Amino acid sequence: MTSPLRIGLFGTGRIGFVHAANAATLPGTVLHRICDPALERARETAQQYGVPHVTADPEEMLSAGDLDAVVVASPTPTHVGLIEECIDRGLPVLCEKPIHLDIRRVDELREKARAATTPVAIGFNRRFDPSIADLHRTVRAGGVGRLEQLTIVSRDPEPPGPEYIAASGGIFRDMTIHDFDIARLFVPEIVEVTARAAQSFSPEIAAAGDFDTATTVLRGAGGEVVTIVNSRHCAYGYDQRLEAFGDAGAARLENLLPLTTRSFGAGGVEGTTPYYSSFVDRYAEAYRAELAEFAEGVRSGTVRNPGFEDGRAALLLADAAQESAERGVAVAVEPSA
Amino acid sequence: MTSPLRIGLFGTGRIGFVHAANAATLPGTVLHRICDPALERARETAQQYGVPHVTADPEEMLSAGDLDAVVVASPTPTHVGLIEECIDRGLPVLCEKPIHLDIRRVDELREKARAATTPVAIGFNRRFDPSIADLHRTVRAGGVGRLEQLTIVSRDPEPPGPEYIAASGGIFRDMTIHDFDIARLFVPEIVEVTARAAQSFSPEIAAAGDFDTATTVLRGAGGEVVTIVNSRHCAYGYDQRLEAFGDAGAARLENLLPLTTRSFGAGGVEGTTPYYSSFVDRYAEAYRAELAEFAEGVRSGTVRNPGFEDGRAALLLADAAQESAERGVAVAVEPSA
Amino acid sequence: MTSPLRIGLFGTGRIGFVHAANAATLPGTVLHRICDPALERARETAQQYGVPHVTADPEEMLSAGDLDAVVVASPTPTHVGLIEECIDRGLPVLCEKPIHLDIRRVDELREKARAATTPVAIGFNRRFDPSIADLHRTVRAGGVGRLEQLTIVSRDPEPPGPEYIAASGGIFRDMTIHDFDIARLFVPEIVEVTARAAQSFSPEIAAAGDFDTATTVLRGAGGEVVTIVNSRHCAYGYDQRLEAFGDAGAARLENLLPLTTRSFGAGGVEGTTPYYSSFVDRYAEAYRAELAEFAEGVRSGTVRNPGFEDGRAALLLADAAQESAERGVAVAVEPSA
Amino acid sequence: MTSPLRIGLFGTGRIGFVHAANAATLPGTVLHRICDPALERARETAQQYGVPHVTADPEEMLSAGDLDAVVVASPTPTHVGLIEECIDRGLPVLCEKPIHLDIRRVDELREKARAATTPVAIGFNRRFDPSIADLHRTVRAGGVGRLEQLTIVSRDPEPPGPEYIAASGGIFRDMTIHDFDIARLFVPEIVEVTARAAQSFSPEIAAAGDFDTATTVLRGAGGEVVTIVNSRHCAYGYDQRLEAFGDAGAARLENLLPLTTRSFGAGGVEGTTPYYSSFVDRYAEAYRAELAEFAEGVRSGTVRNPGFEDGRAALLLADAAQESAERGVAVAVEPSA
Repeated sequence: MTSPLRIGLFGTGRIGFVHAANAATLPGTVLHRICDPALERARETAQQYGVPHVTADPEEMLSAGDLDAVVVASPTPTHVGLIEECIDRGLPVLCEKPIHLDIRRVDELREKARAATTPVAIGFNRRFDPSIADLHRTVRAGGVGRLEQLTIVSRDPEPPGPEYIAASGGIFRDMTIHDFDIARLFVPEIVEVTARAAQSFSPEIAAAGDFDTATTVLRGAGGEVVTIVNSRHCAYGYDQRLEAFGDAGAARLENLLPLTTRSFGAGGVEGTTPYYSSFVDRYAEAYRAELAEFAEGVRSGTVRNPGFEDGRAALLLADAAQESAERGVAVAVEPSA
Repeated sequence: MTSPLRIGLFGTGRIGFVHAANAATLPGTVLHRICDPALERARETAQQYGVPHVTADPEEMLSAGDLDAVVVASPTPTHVGLIEECIDRGLPVLCEKPIHLDIRRVDELREKARAATTPVAIGFNRRFDPSIADLHRTVRAGGVGRLEQLTIVSRDPEPPGPEYIAASGGIFRDMTIHDFDIARLFVPEIVEVTARAAQSFSPEIAAAGDFDTATTVLRGAGGEVVTIVNSRHCAYGYDQRLEAFGDAGAARLENLLPLTTRSFGAGGVEGTTPYYSSFVDRYAEAYRAELAEFAEGVRSGTVRNPGFEDGRAALLLADAAQESAERGVAVAVEPSA
Repeated sequence: MTSPLRIGLFGTGRIGFVHAANAATLPGTVLHRICDPALERARETAQQYGVPHVTADPEEMLSAGDLDAVVVASPTPTHVGLIEECIDRGLPVLCEKPIHLDIRRVDELREKARAATTPVAIGFNRRFDPSIADLHRTVRAGGVGRLEQLTIVSRDPEPPGPEYIAASGGIFRDMTIHDFDIARLFVPEIVEVTARAAQSFSPEIAAAGDFDTATTVLRGAGGEVVTIVNSRHCAYGYDQRLEAFGDAGAARLENLLPLTTRSFGAGGVEGTTPYYSSFVDRYAEAYRAELAEFAEGVRSGTVRNPGFEDGRAALLLADAAQESAERGVAVAVEPSA
Repeated sequence: MTSPLRIGLFGTGRIGFVHAANAATLPGTVLHRICDPALERARETAQQYGVPHVTADPEEMLSAGDLDAVVVASPTPTHVGLIEECIDRGLPVLCEKPIHLDIRRVDELREKARAATTPVAIGFNRRFDPSIADLHRTVRAGGVGRLEQLTIVSRDPEPPGPEYIAASGGIFRDMTIHDFDIARLFVPEIVEVTARAAQSFSPEIAAAGDFDTATTVLRGAGGEVVTIVNSRHCAYGYDQRLEAFGDAGAARLENLLPLTTRSFGAGGVEGTTPYYSSFVDRYAEAYRAELAEFAEGVRSGTVRNPGFEDGRAALLLADAAQESAERGVAVAVEPSA
C-alpha cells in the first residue's frame, strides 16, 4: 500500500465534520490539517481524529507544503477564493456545492478552472449514493430502454433557520441544486427550465422572499421531461425518491429506511421504523464514497467526481428555475449547460 | 325493495359495454333500452344481458317514456345534444367525459344545465375507485394535515390508434382530464396551469401535432402545488399513482396489482404479477360504484356524482394546459374553475 | 344461454348467507329453495334474494323435484345425512367442510360416495382464491423448480365463542383443516404429521381442552416439508400467507389488504389500511368462484371442485395432528391420504 | 480517548478475516497479533492491516503478554482449548460458535468458564444485527404485547462443500444453532424441541447422513411456540426473516436487500436487486457491532455479549433437535437451557 493521501480540511461545521470523519478513517487518506476560524470547534474535531495541525489561518494551511489534497467545507462565499488558491498552488481540491451563489463570480473563475492542471471537484455527494449509482448503472445499461421521463421527489425533514435561508440563495440554488445535478447525470443536455413555486407553510421563508414548495420541469435535448418535486419540510423524515422511465420500463429508488422492521397492530398495519432525519445519515455512505473516489482519483491522476463545469451547470439551472418561478415563463438554457 | 331503475344506454363500444354490464347486474338497476347506430353490436349486448329494447334511433329511445335514467357512452360529439335532450325530457343523465372538446359548445349548454331540474352527471369514474376514495377520505379527515402537494403519475399501457388521437382533442383534453378532475377533488380552487410536454416516442402522435409525454403543474388558491406526470405508454402496464402531502405527513396510493403473488429466483427477486393492462380492468370497481352512486342518487333525489360544472372545469384546465404547453407560459385560470 | 341452475340451500347462517348471495347473483344460477329450521332467518334471506320457496323441512326441499343442485351449509352434524340423501336422489351436492368430525362417520359414507353417479363436492373455498390459485399455477408451471418447502401462516382475527369451540372438534379439525387442504393441493402425498400446540392466550379454549396456538409439520412422499403456523387470534386482522419454496426459487402470497393506501406521518411511516376482519370478506371472491366452478361442473358433467376423498384426507391429517399434539410423536399417515 | 484495545486473533479464514478487518479499523481497537498455522494467509492479512506480529504458534501469541483481548476464529475443535488458555491467563476472549460439537467437551469446560474472572463471549453475531436488535427492542418494549409465536425463516444461499458438511456436526449444530440463539433471545426458557427434517435436494448431504431441509418447533415455558424453517440452499440469495407475534400485534424483519432499486418492465414488474449472497455481507454490520460491544465490555468491565452458557444452551437445543429429527418424538429440555 502506498502512503496515505494527506488531506487538509477547510471548515468543521456539520458537513465539514462529515468530511473530517471520512478523511480520518478511510483507508488511504489521513486528515493532516484543519482550518477553521471557529478554532474551538476545529480543535475538538482535531483531537477526536488525531489531526496534528489546526489553524484559523487559511494561508498557513495552504502554504504548509505537506498536503496532497484539500477539502473545502467552509461557508459558500469562501469557495471561489479557496478553489483559486488551490489551483494556483497545484493542490487538488474537492469543494462543497455551490461554487458560488452568483453565476458571475463562478464565471470569473471559469477560465482558470478550465486551465487548471490539478483537479477541481465539486461535492455533489448524491451521485455516490449506492442506490442512485445503481439506478444510474441500470439506466445506462439499457434497463429502461430509451429514457423519457425522470421524476424526482426530494423533501427535507425540516426547513433551515432564518439565517441560513437568508444566505442560501433561495430554494433552487440551495436545495434543488442537488436534484439538478442528478437530473444532469441522467439527462446531460437540458434545454429548458420551468418552475412553479409557493410559499405554502413557512412564514419565515416567505418573509425572506423565498419559496418552501416547488415543482420544476426540465426538458432535455432528446425530448426527455424531468419533474422535480420539492418541499422544505417533511413530517415523516427525509424523503428522497427517484424514478427513471423509458420505453422498456422503469427503475425506481424508493425512500430508504434505516431499518426494515415492520410492525402490525390493532391500530394499523405495516408501520415501519422512521425514515432518516437528516442528509448526514441518509447520505453517509455517499459522502464516504465521494471522498474515496476523489482520493483514488488524485492518486491515479484521473478524478471522476463532478467537476467545476458540473457545479456551474447546476447553478445555471437553478438561476433559470428562479427566473421561471418569478416570471411564470419557461426559460431556455444552453444545452451545453 | 323498490322497483329497479330502468336505464337506457347510448353507445355500446368499449366503455358503453362496461356500463351495460353494470346496469344489467347491479342490484337496483335494469338495463331496459340500448341505442347505438352500430345495431349489430347493440343487439349482441342486448342479448347477453336480456335487454328488451334495441334501436339505432335516439329519438325512439328517448320518447319511449319508460326510462328512469340515461347513460351516455356514445362518441364525444353527440354528448351535448343528448344531454340537452335528457334535460328537456326530465331524464336524469350520466354522460361520459368530456362534455365536448370545444369549451364554447359546453358554455352554450351551461345555462340549461344549471337550470335543469333533473340531474346531469359526468363520468369521472376515478373518484369512485375504492383506493382513491379512501385516500380522499384520509385527506379530508386531516390525515396529512394541511394539504400542500398533490403528485399524480398517470400512464396508459399503450397509446390509442391514429384515428382516436386525431379526434381526441390532444393529451390534455383526452387523458390528463381525468387527472384534472382528481386534482380538483383534492384542490377545488385551481388558479394557474403550467404544462411542459414532448413528442418523445410516438411519430404518429407527433404527426397529429399532439404530445405523448407531459408534466402539468397546477397551483391552488391556498398555495397548493399539484404535479401531474403523464405518458401515453407504459411497458409494465397501467401506471396510476397518487400522493397527497401535507404538513402532518402523506398518504399514497401505489400502483395496483391484480394479484399479489411475488416470485423470487436466481435471475432476480421479488418479481410480481403484471399490472393491469387497461382502464376497464383497473377501474372496474370504480365504474360499478359510479353507476351505483348515480342510481342511488336518482332514487333519493340527491345525485352526488361529479356534475356539469365539474366537467366544464376540467376542460378549462385542459385548455389552459394546452395553451401553456404551446406558449411556454403559466396560464391563469378562474379560481371558480 | 341455457336456463340457469336451480339451487337449493341448506343453512342460512354466516356461511350459508354467503352461498345464498352467490347462488342468487351469479350468472347461470338461481337460488330456488332454502331450508333452515331457523325459519325467520331463512325467510329474510329468501326475501332479500327473491327466493320462491322456504321451508324448515329438509324432506320437503329434497323431494320437491325442481332442483338441479344442492348446497349444504347447515351445521356439521347434518352433513353426512344430507350428502347421503343427495346421492340417493341423484342431486349434485356442494357440502361445507368438514364432512364430519368423526372419521368413522365419514368412512361409513365413503363407499356410497365413491359409487355416486352425481358429484359430491366439499367446500374448501381457499383453492378458489385468485391469489392462491395463481400461486398454485406458478408452482405447477415450474416457477419455483422442484417444490421443497411449503410454509403457511394462517391466523384468525378473533377466536370463536365457547359454544362454537365446544362443537368444533378442536383447532386442527376446525381451522387447520383448511391449511391441510391447501397443503394437499401443493403436496398431494403426505406421509407424516407432527404438531406442537399450546394454550397460549385463551382461558376459554384451554377450558375446552383445545389449543389456541399450533405449528404443524407435514412431510411429503418426495421429501417436501410443509410448515403450518396457526393462531386463533390476530390483532391486526386476518393473516393468511403462503410460500412455496423450491430449488429454483420461491413464490409468495403476502397478506392481502382491502385497500392499498399507505400513510406516512411523524408517528411512524408506511402505515396502511387494516387487513380483512373476517374470512367472509377475505375470501369473498373465493366463495363466488367456488360456486361458479361447481355450477359449471354440474352443467358440463365434470365437477373439478375438491371431492369427498379430499374432505376425508384433510380430516385424516387433522386427526393425526391432534394425536401428535397430544402424544408428542410424529404420526405416520397413508400416502394415499 | 483511552489507548486502544490490543487484540490477538486466532484464525484468518473467511470468518477470521472479517474479525481482522473489524479489529483493525474499529475506533478503540487495534489488531496486534495474528496466529494461524496457515502462515502465508496470516501474513497477507497482517500486511493488509499493518499487524506487527504474526505466528503459527498459539503459545507464542498467548504468552506475549501485550494483548488485552483475544478473538478465536480458528476451527471448531480448537475452541475449547483456546478458551481454556485464555481463562487461565486472564485474557478476555470472544470465541466463534460453536464452543464444541460435543456437549461433553463443553460441559468439561463449564465449571472453569463459570469461575472465570475474565469474560468468555461466544460469537452469536446475529444478535448484533441492527434489524434483529431493533426487532428485539420492539418486542421487549411491549410492541407486540405478550409474545406467543416466533417464526424464523433461515436459508443459506448455497450448501457448504462435502468436507465442511462432514465436520459440521449436522444442520442443527452448524446452521440452526444461530436460530436457536435468536430463539433464546426472544424466549429464554425453552422446554421442548421437535424437529422434522429431510434429505430433499443434496445427494452429498444425504451421503453424509445429514439433512438439507428442516423445520424445528420449540416450546417455551410460557406457552410460546417457536417455528424455525431452514434450507441449506436458496436460489435467490441469503434468506433471513423473523416474525415476533403477540396478543397486541406482530413485528417483522423482512429479508434485507443491499440496494432498493426496483425495476419494472414488460416481462414482469417490481423486480429488485438480488439479496445478499453470503453471511459475510449480510451480517457485516453485525460482526462489527459484535466486536465493538465486546471491546467496550472489556474496557468497561461488563461484557454483554452472549456468554459461555448461551453457547452451551444453543448446543443443547441442537442436540435435542438432532435426536427429535432422528427418533420422531418431541424432546424435553431443561428450561434452564
